[in-house]
Amino acid sequence: MTSTQEHFIEGNKAYAAKFDKGHLPLPPADHYAILTCMDARIDPAAAFNIPLGSAHVIRNAGASARAGFRDLVISQNLLGTTEVLLVKHTGCGMLTFDGETARDLVKKNKGDKAAEEVKDLNFLTFADLEAQVKDDVEWLKSRAVEEGITITGWVYECETGKAKRIV
Amino acid sequence: MTSTQEHFIEGNKAYAAKFDKGHLPLPPADHYAILTCMDARIDPAAAFNIPLGSAHVIRNAGASARAGFRDLVISQNLLGTTEVLLVKHTGCGMLTFDGETARDLVKKNKGDKAAEEVKDLNFLTFADLEAQVKDDVEWLKSRAVEEGITITGWVYECETGKAKRIV
Repeated sequence: MTSTQEHFIEGNKAYAAKFDKGHLPLPPADHYAILTCMDARIDPAAAFNIPLGSAHVIRNAGASARAGFRDLVISQNLLGTTEVLLVKHTGCGMLTFDGETARDLVKKNKGDKAAEEVKDLNFLTFADLEAQVKDDVEWLKSRAVEEGITITGWVYECETGKAKRIV
Repeated sequence: MTSTQEHFIEGNKAYAAKFDKGHLPLPPADHYAILTCMDARIDPAAAFNIPLGSAHVIRNAGASARAGFRDLVISQNLLGTTEVLLVKHTGCGMLTFDGETARDLVKKNKGDKAAEEVKDLNFLTFADLEAQVKDDVEWLKSRAVEEGITITGWVYECETGKAKRIV
């Protein structure tokens, strides 16, 4: 067993010992979804005020609306959410490389077969944080399947813990 | 402003006022990623013992390895993680419908244009929880790009707060 697995099991045991929320239903009680980044410096429940059972929390590299499209469609059509807060953040890894760099790194680190596996992968990196928040929100708003859904875009500052609305 | 946005802003203000983790670096300190579901009943930081800055947390509908592939490739090749804990959970929404049902619902609720947008979307639903944990882990392990990465599969019980290892 790795030390990560030990840490996971130990922490989960302590969590389960005090757990008293086993009655919560499947659909989010407050009918919204947060779409944010997988970045290690973000704790959405704490930073964005999300009690257990309240909202879907979707997290991918860069808080990409395109990558999270399937999740949002399911959240809204199968589980009744009607609002999305898309939250990107300062210092995002997706600002620091592009698809070509990523593909080159995979080839160098893992070889030709691995390179082939990511050949057609759209890494969805971006160069301008606030512009990309706007672009993602516009892209979502232009989908017919998002009609009637309230969509806003935000930036979270990893340096201060503060979130501000962009669009 | 919606009540959800007000709630978000209010909670974030309180969080930022006590925030003292602005110094954390981009790469996850403990070099691993958790891949789990967007389900509202899961708080990964609390349930899986993840301090701020420690690990990537990827969340999508069903904790799908295929949907999270881009995120994992980035986590591992650009940000140095070497281990993945894939955590699905009891009572997952993805066990309750299939792609055809989802597409029919979208068409009924949002109309033909919306139906067209999700026509080719793979909803990645599944029928057997533990079997799907195994399938996802096997699928990941069979990628050349995942060579050298430690991959385990778990089930979290929303009723008890307990996680158990499957594979």
